[in-house]
Amino acid sequence: MAQKKVFLGEEFLPKQWYNLNADFPTPMPPPLNPATGQPPDDSFVEHMGNIFPMNLVEQEMTGERWVDIPEEVLGIYKIWRPSPLYRADGLEKMLDAPVKIYFKNEGVSPPGSHKPNTAVPQAYYNKVFGINRITTETGAGQWGSALSFACQLFDIECHVYMVKVSFQQKPYRRLMMMTWGADCVASPTDTTEAGRKVLAENPDSPGSLGIAISEAVEMALARDDTRYSLGSVLNHVMLHQTVIGQEAKLQMDALGEYPDVVIGCAGGGSNFAGLAFPFIADKIAGKEVQVIAAEPTSCPTMTKGPYAYDFGDNNHMTPLLPMHTLGHNFVPAPIHAGGLRYHGMAPMVSHAVTQGLVEPQAFDQIATFNAGVSFARTEGFIPAPETNHAIAAVIAAAEQAKQEGKEKTILFNWSGHGLVDLAAYDAFLSGNLTRYELPQEEIERALEAIKDLPKIG
Amino acid sequence: MAQKKVFLGEEFLPKQWYNLNADFPTPMPPPLNPATGQPPDDSFVEHMGNIFPMNLVEQEMTGERWVDIPEEVLGIYKIWRPSPLYRADGLEKMLDAPVKIYFKNEGVSPPGSHKPNTAVPQAYYNKVFGINRITTETGAGQWGSALSFACQLFDIECHVYMVKVSFQQKPYRRLMMMTWGADCVASPTDTTEAGRKVLAENPDSPGSLGIAISEAVEMALARDDTRYSLGSVLNHVMLHQTVIGQEAKLQMDALGEYPDVVIGCAGGGSNFAGLAFPFIADKIAGKEVQVIAAEPTSCPTMTKGPYAYDFGDNNHMTPLLPMHTLGHNFVPAPIHAGGLRYHGMAPMVSHAVTQGLVEPQAFDQIATFNAGVSFARTEGFIPAPETNHAIAAVIAAAEQAKQEGKEKTILFNWSGHGLVDLAAYDAFLSGNLTRYELPQEEIERALEAIKDLPKIG
Repeated sequence: MAQKKVFLGEEFLPKQWYNLNADFPTPMPPPLNPATGQPPDDSFVEHMGNIFPMNLVEQEMTGERWVDIPEEVLGIYKIWRPSPLYRADGLEKMLDAPVKIYFKNEGVSPPGSHKPNTAVPQAYYNKVFGINRITTETGAGQWGSALSFACQLFDIECHVYMVKVSFQQKPYRRLMMMTWGADCVASPTDTTEAGRKVLAENPDSPGSLGIAISEAVEMALARDDTRYSLGSVLNHVMLHQTVIGQEAKLQMDALGEYPDVVIGCAGGGSNFAGLAFPFIADKIAGKEVQVIAAEPTSCPTMTKGPYAYDFGDNNHMTPLLPMHTLGHNFVPAPIHAGGLRYHGMAPMVSHAVTQGLVEPQAFDQIATFNAGVSFARTEGFIPAPETNHAIAAVIAAAEQAKQEGKEKTILFNWSGHGLVDLAAYDAFLSGNLTRYELPQEEIERALEAIKDLPKIG
Repeated sequence: MAQKKVFLGEEFLPKQWYNLNADFPTPMPPPLNPATGQPPDDSFVEHMGNIFPMNLVEQEMTGERWVDIPEEVLGIYKIWRPSPLYRADGLEKMLDAPVKIYFKNEGVSPPGSHKPNTAVPQAYYNKVFGINRITTETGAGQWGSALSFACQLFDIECHVYMVKVSFQQKPYRRLMMMTWGADCVASPTDTTEAGRKVLAENPDSPGSLGIAISEAVEMALARDDTRYSLGSVLNHVMLHQTVIGQEAKLQMDALGEYPDVVIGCAGGGSNFAGLAFPFIADKIAGKEVQVIAAEPTSCPTMTKGPYAYDFGDNNHMTPLLPMHTLGHNFVPAPIHAGGLRYHGMAPMVSHAVTQGLVEPQAFDQIATFNAGVSFARTEGFIPAPETNHAIAAVIAAAEQAKQEGKEKTILFNWSGHGLVDLAAYDAFLSGNLTRYELPQEEIERALEAIKDLPKIG
């Protein structure tokens, strides 16, 4: 009987995170201080140290290829890591294409996604730094629930600003946060300057990650014992997620396999980076591997947005980051994949795209739920709406292999389960899901917001 | 660093199910034909063959100690089995008692509970027998979703009667069933005689497992290509679940451990039996091990109900089963642990109780959610409301060990996660959970229903 999955013992947990910044053929452009338009000087680093604990600010800037994972973090990783690698033979059979499909199941963590891979070290570094209160934003709630889980284990207070449309669509993720002892409110709120500004313009704003980030950062800056935590986009987040790809390489190796195609969905970029970066390191070293990042057509950051300096948030509180962006005021349509509703893309992922190391593809909401239901009905596990974008890309890659008549091995990141996103499946199965188009003129209007910012290069 | 969990490779999947009926010191009383008051004769077996496929009827009656697991079933078990065994060191630390606590995590299956352990073989045996449509009932929805998952993989139609109170409280489990292609309706319905009878007496009936069983059996009998499937209570269900305990023994063994106390929650009895029966075999053979079955005070079948012949359903369609029962018309309070709202207890579990092999304990809803939140905040995973009963018993056993000043090793069945039961946690955390008492006179009134039935022995 064929092997269905590969488990690794806890002794195979990676002991270091991998930093792709050490291996890019051309270095990333630096972030810029928006006040000066210059790379961060000491006073700016100090300012960042008011937003994040300084040990994480240092990790954000490190050029080291390998960063040790603290013992305390490994101790908590062991609750769900190493995560299993699966063969999707049921899906293969349905697709009837010359492909083998493997996926890394990140849904086995307590919050059900890859997010605790970075939530746990972030809570740890905050704790070590003496911080006892963390603020954050969340889209679909995967990040907020992961950080709530991590903060609970380190006895840190957690305050979450949840994008309003997701707060309404996904009450169960808010309840997960409550169960882990966190506070969760619908953003925009009237408790911050940033929130009040948005509400004044549009009292019915569905919110966005950019707005929620502004609120959380503002609250972190307001108190000495509080810092802000971001679940994606930043370098240290990408770093933490690389345990996924490192484990996957060991597991594929145990099966005598190496992928021809590596796929992840990308909103801020972290689950994609986590699986892909260790393989991109091989690609830089000369190995042939196609790497695909799947995003929604309603928020086509990489496929339609320019590579430019932009703010990470709505309210100009972050440094200027070099990234694919639709402009920091862009408010994506309320698709169910709330975790992919972000105007920008992680600088590291964006840089990998511009270097030709990553191929972005966009999929519409209907196509992704078609893919997700096919997966659920052949493999059993019900995927998160975000993950459905990766599955749509897997199906497209399988169809391409069929057309080319080439045998291919596909590996993708099953970034989380959809058990608390079932209202979205309900909408899809009853024919009530909207297929959002994003007109070019709307993109151009959104990009007005960055036209006066410094340019890259 | 201490080991957190034990995974077993797929090669360690049990190849046979264990049948405790081969080892009981005193044999179980037989079921009775309600029409004759006698043990089943040929015509009665034939009648049962109209409800269940005959291959499962034969398995129900087998006295063999070991029953081979078909290859096709093993192939699907591998999607989530062997399930991991965890050390609950976070909970241990909180309890500060001289105990080691281990749990078997059955929440890793696609539907999130132990139920597919029997749903998959039942769907398989139906398929082999040429059945292409299965009806069933479900309480909290764990069984209905598990059977939907299994039927989808074997390309069988699945029709689920869901107890109305759970249908309303747990929309997400219904959506899981839909996603796996099943039909799910709120019971009582007006589409069956059984349902109409209940609605005529009480149009606002919250439903019960007994009523839903009657509806599903009636619909199975109405069509030749259709059979009924039961997720608990019956012998073959207990059999299928024993993969849990067999794996747990291997995993405890790998750690050099053997439990002093084995604990499971019990509604119909299947997850409890699955973990406990392989250990009860050891107990019968002379090994010292305490086995505890945890039930709700609002449905205290084992702690308050007599051991007597009773119908498995509300409408007198099943054989008379020898079991601890509160009477087949008993409608339990609408607690959130919907899977524990059953008037009877599996004949095999009931018999083990009467033989002194199992010690039943009852816990009220508030105590169980207290236990569940403690677990979620120390171990990360959020348990199902049913599972919270087992955790309440674990905490009680740890407190007893502390009082006795004895070191103990506790093993319990973490029968499923609570990610789609979060509304119940919301009610608990906001102080809106009801503590149901069950007055003795209400029990006596319910037991009127069985006073004219044949007696055991």
